[in-house]
Order: sequence, then C-alpha cells, then structure tokens
Amino acid sequence: MKLATLKSSSRDGVLVVVNRNLTLCLAVPAIARTLQEALDNWDAVEGKLRATYDALNQGQVQDAQAFDPAQCHSPLPRAYQWADGSAYVNHVELVRRARGAELPPEFWTDPLMYQGGSDSFAGPRDPIAIRSEEWGIDLEAEVAVITGDIPMGATPAQAADGIRLIMLVNDWSLRNLIPAEFAKGFGFFQSKPASAFSPVAVTPDELGDDWREGKAHRPLTVHLNDALFGKPDAGQDMTFNFPQLIAHVAKTRELEAGSIIGSGTVSNKQGDLHGSSIANGGVGYCCLAEVRMYETIEMGKPQTSFLKFGDSVKIEMFDRNGQSLFGAIEQRVQPYAA
Amino acid sequence: MKLATLKSSSRDGVLVVVNRNLTLCLAVPAIARTLQEALDNWDAVEGKLRATYDALNQGQVQDAQAFDPAQCHSPLPRAYQWADGSAYVNHVELVRRARGAELPPEFWTDPLMYQGGSDSFAGPRDPIAIRSEEWGIDLEAEVAVITGDIPMGATPAQAADGIRLIMLVNDWSLRNLIPAEFAKGFGFFQSKPASAFSPVAVTPDELGDDWREGKAHRPLTVHLNDALFGKPDAGQDMTFNFPQLIAHVAKTRELEAGSIIGSGTVSNKQGDLHGSSIANGGVGYCCLAEVRMYETIEMGKPQTSFLKFGDSVKIEMFDRNGQSLFGAIEQRVQPYAA
Repeated sequence: MKLATLKSSSRDGVLVVVNRNLTLCLAVPAIARTLQEALDNWDAVEGKLRATYDALNQGQVQDAQAFDPAQCHSPLPRAYQWADGSAYVNHVELVRRARGAELPPEFWTDPLMYQGGSDSFAGPRDPIAIRSEEWGIDLEAEVAVITGDIPMGATPAQAADGIRLIMLVNDWSLRNLIPAEFAKGFGFFQSKPASAFSPVAVTPDELGDDWREGKAHRPLTVHLNDALFGKPDAGQDMTFNFPQLIAHVAKTRELEAGSIIGSGTVSNKQGDLHGSSIANGGVGYCCLAEVRMYETIEMGKPQTSFLKFGDSVKIEMFDRNGQSLFGAIEQRVQPYAA
Repeated sequence: MKLATLKSSSRDGVLVVVNRNLTLCLAVPAIARTLQEALDNWDAVEGKLRATYDALNQGQVQDAQAFDPAQCHSPLPRAYQWADGSAYVNHVELVRRARGAELPPEFWTDPLMYQGGSDSFAGPRDPIAIRSEEWGIDLEAEVAVITGDIPMGATPAQAADGIRLIMLVNDWSLRNLIPAEFAKGFGFFQSKPASAFSPVAVTPDELGDDWREGKAHRPLTVHLNDALFGKPDAGQDMTFNFPQLIAHVAKTRELEAGSIIGSGTVSNKQGDLHGSSIANGGVGYCCLAEVRMYETIEMGKPQTSFLKFGDSVKIEMFDRNGQSLFGAIEQRVQPYAA
C-alpha cells in the first residue's frame, strides 16, 4: 500500500491512497483525514486503506484523481518524533579517518542516534531555504520508517512488528555549523534545518523480498544538478537495521504512533576516492561530506564544494522493474525569504 | 488565561479553560477541541478563550466542572517540538567544576540546547516509569514556554511576541547513562525519558510584573518525598531568556505553533554546599545532580543518592499571593511494567 499527503489549507494536509504506479490517488476522509490519524488508529483503518489501494490498482475507482508529487507535502508534514541514526558505520568511520581519529569499537555495537526537529518538515518538491551559503549546505539521502506504538524496552523483534511505513528522507545538514555545536557537547541543533521526505510512504510488503532483515535492499539514487552522484545499496553495510534502531530509541521510553526513525546517510564500503566515484564504476555517495572525506584522507583537504544557491538534489529508489517506489525528492537550494 | 488538557480516549485529550484559582474548568469544543488546535488557530480563538476565562473567574459559567489536576494530561500530551536549553549557566559551570574542567567562555554568550523526544509526554500526576534504578534517576525542575509560529531568523524581540503560554516541566534525566552518550558525541538520547509538564499552562499576563525580560521572576519550589529541596528564583541567574532561546532554535529553521522551549534546570548562584542547602538558609536545588556537584567539589565525591523506586517529586510555582500558578507536578518513581 502507498500513502501520501496532499497540501491543503490544513497544516496536516489531506491523506491520499496512491496506486502502485504513482499515477492515481484518492482522498479517503471517511477512513482517515490525515496520515497521523491513520497511524493513530492503524488497526481499525489498515484494512479499509488496503481495500482502497487494491481498487485503485485495478482501475476500479471512478473518482480517482491524477497523482502529482508536486502537490505533496511530506507524508507527515509535522511529526511527534524524528530520530535519526548513523546506521551505516562506514560513513562514521570515514568521518573519523578524515580527522585522523580512530573509531571507538563500541560504535559497531551501540547505535549512534540524534533527536531531530520534527515540527515543520519541507515537502518533497519544496526548495530548501537557507539563510547563508557559508554554512556548508549538504544533502543526506537516507531511508526512514514510520512506527506504530512501541512499548518501552521493546526488543528488535517487537520493534520490527511496529514498522508501519517506509519512505526516503533528505536530512539536510549545515556542515560548517557542526564543529562548534559538537564542541559544546550536546550534538546537532542549528546544524540541522528542516528535513524533507519522499512524496509517498509505503508499507514494507511493497518492497517484496527487497525488504528483509529490517533493511531496504535497493540502491538509493542521488542526482546533483541532474548528474548521477550516488547509487549505494541501502541494504548493504547497514550495521544496525531499523528494528535495532527502534529498540535503541525504546530503551528508556515508549514510542508513540507516527514516530519517524531514520537510517542515517546511506554509505557503502568502497576502497578509495578514485574507485568510489560513479565515473570510475563506484556507487558514489549520498552526501557531499563523504566524497570530501575521501579527498581529505588522500589529498590532505577537501576539493569538492558544498551546495550553493540554485543547486538541485534528486533522491529516489526504484524497484527491480524500474518503478519508482516512493516518488522522488527534488529540492533546489535557495536563500531564505521571511 | 489558564488552559489545561483533560485525559480522554483521544491521544490529545480535551482542552479546558481553567479559572485563575484552579478550582473550575470548562471544555470548549466549539472553540477548540485540543490545545494544539487552539495553538494552530491562535489569532482566531484567543479572544473566545479569554472570554470564557473571564466568565469562569466571575462565576458566570453554569456548566463549569470542578478542576482536578489528577485528571490532567500534560497541556500538550504530545508535541511537534520539545527543545530544552541550559539557560542557568551557573548549573553548567558547576557540572564542569565538579569534573575539574573550565567552562568555555562562549557558554556565557551562546545558548546550549538539545532536542528532546516529544511524542509521548507523561501527565503531571503520572508516575515516572523507569526500567532500572541503576540508571541514576534525577528530576530537573524547569520553566517552559509554548510558542506560536516563529519565522526563521527571528530576533529575540520577534520571538518574544511568539510566546503563547508558560508552564513548568520535570525534565527527567538518567544521569548514569549520560557519560557514555556524551562520549559518542551526539548528546542526550536514552538518558532522557518522558518529560512531564504542569497541569496548567498560562498566558504571560497571568504572571503580571513577574513576567519581565522574558523570564518568570518567581521561586520554583521542589519537594522530594514531602521535604522542601529547592526554591531558587527562576528569574535570577537565567543567562539566556526565553526570547533568546527561541531565537537560537530559529537560526536555521522555522518553529511551528506548539513548539515547547525549556529553560533547563533552574539554578541560582550560591557559595557552597553548606550555604546552598535549604536547612542553612540557601535556596536549594532543582535537581539532585546539583547538590552532588557541590559535594564532589568539596568532598571529592557525591554523597546524595539519585532517586529510588517509591520516591516522590513535587514541583510548583506560586504567585505573590500564594496562589499556585500552574498547579503542581507530582510524580512518583516506579518500575516500568510493559
């Protein structure tokens, strides 16, 4: 089943069921007006939403409308929780190597996560508005899940049962603000502007066999200014799967329905700068910081710039038949106008 | 104006207007069903809510019901944002002194804030359920504000206009989990279980002249197991006021209506362990960590234990006439039962 949220005069938009090919959709106010409302009452509404989805796919819904990702908000325009992991520890190890530090061994066994701002996400086709180009504007292409209610102390197996939907996220970072924030000891804050999510969120069964071990086993494609920049496999080198990340969050508190848990920047282990680039047969990168780290390790300092106003980013994932699973996040960087 | 949320079968409870003496309340579904709905439409509903409040205070509401804080959820049972500061830098300086480190000078000019979990707050009279006594269970008594929509890049003056409501918070901490989390570099996460807020949130005018300079100039009283433990003045030694904290959050993103911003543990500058205790005429403490820091500085190690199952905490603030402003947070520590 595929779900999306169309923009409306309401802050939470309008829930629509979208067909598998992302061509048609239908608002379902009699079932749930918003995605949060559906998640709040999942057991009662899931069957009805799935019946609508089946009818849409079979062309049996007369009042279906054309689905336009440009009309979408993020599936949850605002959420009660956005917690992001760094599950691709290869990425974290590169960060450390680039500054000449060793990765503490417990980083391979204890997930690194931060709590993100979730009151005001950007839509998948909204520009990302930043007040200064000097802040080091970087994308981070990731996979995320939306959970149901998860009890405190849930095991990874229990957490797996609570995964309701999967989507993509662009977890923007302001790289030049991070060092000073980290030096203060409390982690990210101002260095994380509003994230944007894919137009569509899907139930795990939509990925078929490619959703296994709590991971999405498909390449995550990233284009920068229309050039392919990365296509690492999101199922590869993910040290902590989503059930483990959720269990980490649940150690000391309950998660309420509608919590979003992110994977962190997708990153595959690759040998070096030359071999990792798309041009040389590598799978590339899901953030600019990663190529800058290879450059720092091999050349002493980064060569690639962060994003500038006017640059564009596209993030998408396709199934084995070439069908876009979630629709594309497509954002242009622009100066903020109050 | 005073507002509260009664528990109901809905996750967001029922908004009620409460009279000034906290004896009567009235649900106002025709104005707004929930506090978040009121905040989403503040300009349209504020006048109607205030008219109801005035009528309640004048005894003119026939169907008013008795107000019972035990029936309350936190004013926002779940919120889209909970960002907490460490505005009482005296507290931060004590933390550093206790571990023999100097406070970086920029800590006096650049607020320290973290993003907290906001999907599932505890009610003001709910027990705080913790899975292990060994995690170092500590209260943190604080003041918090709820904002309206705040534009990105807002100045402190603009932020001040966006403060809608004031309340109290018990920002529970699991002290023994903090060192390992901080060593990982991303700040708090598992060390912060569900916070609880005061039964009532009030508009700034309810504090009269005691709300000035963006601070609440009243003592915050803390009882542990019915003994007075602290009464520091929340308006004193607050290095960053609420407008400054909000502006800090808004540097790189917009804040959406219903964002909660906390002050951090209230702490007044006091000379030493002896002079700071209530028994010796001091104003005491708003968390156990603070007395343990004085003990560490003067005696080499902490003497006071963290909380155990069965211990109780009460947090309240009174106006000049002895009227409770927000009602009391009263929580007992208990083991978590799934």
